[in-house]
Amino acid sequence: MVEAANDDTYVLRPVGRVASPLTDAASAPRQGDEGAPAAWLIFDARVERALRDLRVGAELLVLTWLDRARRDVLAVHPRGDESRPETGVFSTRSPHRPNPIGLHRVRVLTVDGLRVQVADLEALDGTPVLDVKPVLGAVDER
Amino acid sequence: MVEAANDDTYVLRPVGRVASPLTDAASAPRQGDEGAPAAWLIFDARVERALRDLRVGAELLVLTWLDRARRDVLAVHPRGDESRPETGVFSTRSPHRPNPIGLHRVRVLTVDGLRVQVADLEALDGTPVLDVKPVLGAVDER
Repeated sequence: MVEAANDDTYVLRPVGRVASPLTDAASAPRQGDEGAPAAWLIFDARVERALRDLRVGAELLVLTWLDRARRDVLAVHPRGDESRPETGVFSTRSPHRPNPIGLHRVRVLTVDGLRVQVADLEALDGTPVLDVKPVLGAVDER
Repeated sequence: MVEAANDDTYVLRPVGRVASPLTDAASAPRQGDEGAPAAWLIFDARVERALRDLRVGAELLVLTWLDRARRDVLAVHPRGDESRPETGVFSTRSPHRPNPIGLHRVRVLTVDGLRVQVADLEALDGTPVLDVKPVLGAVDER
């Protein structure tokens, strides 16, 4: 068993950025499958080797740092709807949360060196990219 | 459009820790649905309000900081199998990656104040917890 409380911190270094026509949180869709546009992930040259097996058509999870979110918000009205009861952020997908990490399921449309175009990404232009993971298939396909 | 390269960094402050019988990466399952045990998430008191709507039976995504992973690894043999070709880590679920954020799908078994017991968590004892999100249902249920 471990003690819960501690003051350790960890430093994230983005591996790239989102380039998207979305520039305004108020007009962006709330999730990628709610009408988000195609966007580009522009990666840093230092992670080129990590990218090399990404292929058109792949289903990926993109993790981002929601750099315009608030970290001091612990409860929200879901989807900004004041008629819905205030809910702890760990039970919502609000961008506002103690560690504002965005999780986006996307499909690869184009691979062009350090630039990867994906469908269905609701992240705003300039959002830092932290990680990319494949969507897992069935256990026997891993 | 944005420039990809930059030196911005972001600081993660864990919201809790994993308490698990798993203490050794070599013997831990590779994914939660491959025989991982139940474990406890022990949250810091400062995020109590964010937790308050978690319920037994909820399906959650837990994000962790894989503090025993290497950040300088960009390609691996998947699942440690040397017979498989070396693959860029963005196409694998290797813990070793530039920002070693773990993504775990779990089900809530018990809620006891700041302690939440979950099924199917392959994270090691002491792993920092960064965030908790609900699994999204269909668009019309959000």
